[in-house]
Amino acid sequence: MCPRMSEEQFSEWYNQLIEDAALSDKRYPVKGMNVWTPFGWKAMMAIDALIRAEMERTSHDEVCFPVLIPATEFEKEAQHIKGFSSEVFWVTKAGDNTLDVPLAMRPTSETAMYPMFKLWVRSHADLPLKTFQIVKVYRYDTKMTRSFIRVREIHFFESHTCHATFEEAEAQIKEDLEIWARLSKELALPYLTAKRPDWDKFPGAFYTIGFDVLTPSGKAMQMSSVHQYKTNFAKAYDIQFEDEKGERHHVHQTTYGMSERLLGAIVAVHGDDRGVVLPPAIAPVQVVVVPIQSKGQTQEVLDAAHALADELDTEGLRVHLDVRDLRPGDKFYHWEKRGVPIRLELGPRDIKHGQVTVAVRDRTERATFRRDEVVAKVLEALSEMQWRMYERAEKDLWARVHDLPDIPAGFELEDVARVGWCGELDCATQMEVPLEAKFLGEDLDLKRPALERCTHCGAKAVSTMYVSKTA
Amino acid sequence: MCPRMSEEQFSEWYNQLIEDAALSDKRYPVKGMNVWTPFGWKAMMAIDALIRAEMERTSHDEVCFPVLIPATEFEKEAQHIKGFSSEVFWVTKAGDNTLDVPLAMRPTSETAMYPMFKLWVRSHADLPLKTFQIVKVYRYDTKMTRSFIRVREIHFFESHTCHATFEEAEAQIKEDLEIWARLSKELALPYLTAKRPDWDKFPGAFYTIGFDVLTPSGKAMQMSSVHQYKTNFAKAYDIQFEDEKGERHHVHQTTYGMSERLLGAIVAVHGDDRGVVLPPAIAPVQVVVVPIQSKGQTQEVLDAAHALADELDTEGLRVHLDVRDLRPGDKFYHWEKRGVPIRLELGPRDIKHGQVTVAVRDRTERATFRRDEVVAKVLEALSEMQWRMYERAEKDLWARVHDLPDIPAGFELEDVARVGWCGELDCATQMEVPLEAKFLGEDLDLKRPALERCTHCGAKAVSTMYVSKTA
Repeated sequence: MCPRMSEEQFSEWYNQLIEDAALSDKRYPVKGMNVWTPFGWKAMMAIDALIRAEMERTSHDEVCFPVLIPATEFEKEAQHIKGFSSEVFWVTKAGDNTLDVPLAMRPTSETAMYPMFKLWVRSHADLPLKTFQIVKVYRYDTKMTRSFIRVREIHFFESHTCHATFEEAEAQIKEDLEIWARLSKELALPYLTAKRPDWDKFPGAFYTIGFDVLTPSGKAMQMSSVHQYKTNFAKAYDIQFEDEKGERHHVHQTTYGMSERLLGAIVAVHGDDRGVVLPPAIAPVQVVVVPIQSKGQTQEVLDAAHALADELDTEGLRVHLDVRDLRPGDKFYHWEKRGVPIRLELGPRDIKHGQVTVAVRDRTERATFRRDEVVAKVLEALSEMQWRMYERAEKDLWARVHDLPDIPAGFELEDVARVGWCGELDCATQMEVPLEAKFLGEDLDLKRPALERCTHCGAKAVSTMYVSKTA
Repeated sequence: MCPRMSEEQFSEWYNQLIEDAALSDKRYPVKGMNVWTPFGWKAMMAIDALIRAEMERTSHDEVCFPVLIPATEFEKEAQHIKGFSSEVFWVTKAGDNTLDVPLAMRPTSETAMYPMFKLWVRSHADLPLKTFQIVKVYRYDTKMTRSFIRVREIHFFESHTCHATFEEAEAQIKEDLEIWARLSKELALPYLTAKRPDWDKFPGAFYTIGFDVLTPSGKAMQMSSVHQYKTNFAKAYDIQFEDEKGERHHVHQTTYGMSERLLGAIVAVHGDDRGVVLPPAIAPVQVVVVPIQSKGQTQEVLDAAHALADELDTEGLRVHLDVRDLRPGDKFYHWEKRGVPIRLELGPRDIKHGQVTVAVRDRTERATFRRDEVVAKVLEALSEMQWRMYERAEKDLWARVHDLPDIPAGFELEDVARVGWCGELDCATQMEVPLEAKFLGEDLDLKRPALERCTHCGAKAVSTMYVSKTA
């Protein structure tokens, strides 16, 4: 973890890390639409694979809906259209024809899916319906764009579920929280859990829970969010089922969203002054093998390096053998910038001593492994690095959350505050304005005791709220 | 293989098969844009996985480009824009703003990628550049839509390569032909190889080679195509490299495309009167286990079925245990429609005799496997079915290709003809019109001797051409 940065420092450092690691190319000639380069796309697909494994474990079916939504369907849920209409890209022409009904590029897929859910859900036997998709969504965001964090074409995960009752939908939300807790370990992204205030919930939702990480510049950044819709959309799209007694009811719905921001957060939370640091669970290359050649022994070293890489590959590790015609130092630098967790160096001296030299990305000192133990040692080192990354970030996160029983005059908020709130909208505003920050929502983690009094008015607090600037 | 069908019969049968197998839902409210349902999407992802394995084997890097292309970039290559302009969906508005430069939804990605290739390719050390992506493309096709075969949102594979010389680009085309030959085995799709006539090549290409299968109604359907661009696009997009001597040259480019039609072709070529038949290599469920329960033995049979399914799962097979509260016959029917290659039935009598009852989807008679040999036997049966499907389709294909040294008066073309062609455009027309068919292109398979004379004028033939109606 780097020391706290200013927003400008963060921005410059973050962009440089992504460029140096070749994770994304933002020179594409449409603002906010970037090119997924091979290394970045591999990292994203590794993240997707973790998500798919969670979806399979929890019996969600993967679907894939069209990107275009007729305006007539898009506009059926009033709050939803209000929330998204300023951000929609519209297709109005095809060939030489002007379309009768303009087509929205999905900013999210409720309005694409729910007309079909109406057809798919007929009886209680069709419930629960648990689906998800991993697709691109489009948002004409007018804020400053930033690779992975704020883009206009977004690589997006969304699950959509239908249930017979509110309680069953609540159970789904609980499952979603568990899914995120598991994923966050693999992504090495400890987080705050905040029930968003009513004025900041997803357009059309009954309530929203967001999971936030902190950027090095002290802003909260939403990683994923789950939404309880109750029957809000089911009524707008007429999604009903027949129960055992033959009575018809609207379904209760939930959704769960995540995006390529996960990758941006990994860069932001774990990067250091040498470049990106990737958690082993998502690193496209987990181990790079660098032969250290010296004159006369070239072939022997190369053969040994091949054998080493093959052995690790056979164990299912993502391994790369770097045989480019470059000096070892240049190769070290190249893979450090890309955040590869483990580098194994193999030279004549290593071969002679039956060892390999090891550098683990998040540590400075090098070590050696015995050649005949290398597989077990590498697996152990990857596992340790995965946990070390999570734990370091977790410690750092909670060290940056400060309780504010009152707001001293001239106080400047850094990172995250917890405040007591009496529930009055005016008190929220009276806190947000001087802090130049937003209510992230109610602290559902409660790692520390709740605040008992409203930080602004001193009345009895009904909830403890996280407050922070947001990315 | 079903007997030859009329176009109407084919259409009705094909649509019914897809609906019964729940491969796609075409009730989505935008014409030609269908919903990928869980079973169909799993099949498509299995196809994508085979393609990705081929790309990895041949050192192509996966990328992912934005879907939107500025009109200014889209219009740089004259032939290309001429070929596609009538089919483009245009984004002209975002939020309340009219865009200064309209954005095309990619119908294919040359014009998205090549401005970036210009930045990526600087020196000979950057070559060859071998990339691919699997994305959706958009074509406002005005012909009748048909699931997987003719849609407006198309699940699409495209590889794009840059080379230093024409010869190196030619070597890439050769590699592409080998890739397709391997894939076609896994997809059980034997094919015709046709070098498209000049008037039917890809817009902007120097030449195009297409791979076609035959529908049961006797129409050729393009499965994939490879294109040699020479420097046509490189000049339009100014993609140059510096050679060892410091001289600058335009790169030579190739592309290779395939789409969800692969899945449509599998349905069309292998379906029968009981439903879809899926090649084991792409079947989302390769083996379904159906417990045959009778009173009093329910738990014993269920436990045995679980153990059987677990054993197959451990071997890496895609296995599903069907424990729904339905009669066995209904389950058989359900999975037959979905084309599941192998059904294993396990009842009290099977358990008593230490066996399982086996039905292989493309055969009518049932058999039994000894329970203690079941894994090996299932693997063998899957492998045999895979080859049997390919070989049966291959035999059928070539039985439907007929040589036409002349065109008798009143001749009605069924399926595919091979004709001799002198190379004169007029002779091509004089054959296409009475046959009510199109030149697919030059026969590059040459499984039979070339025709020596032009089928129309009798002059010396310069090539033997495949002729057929097209889907």
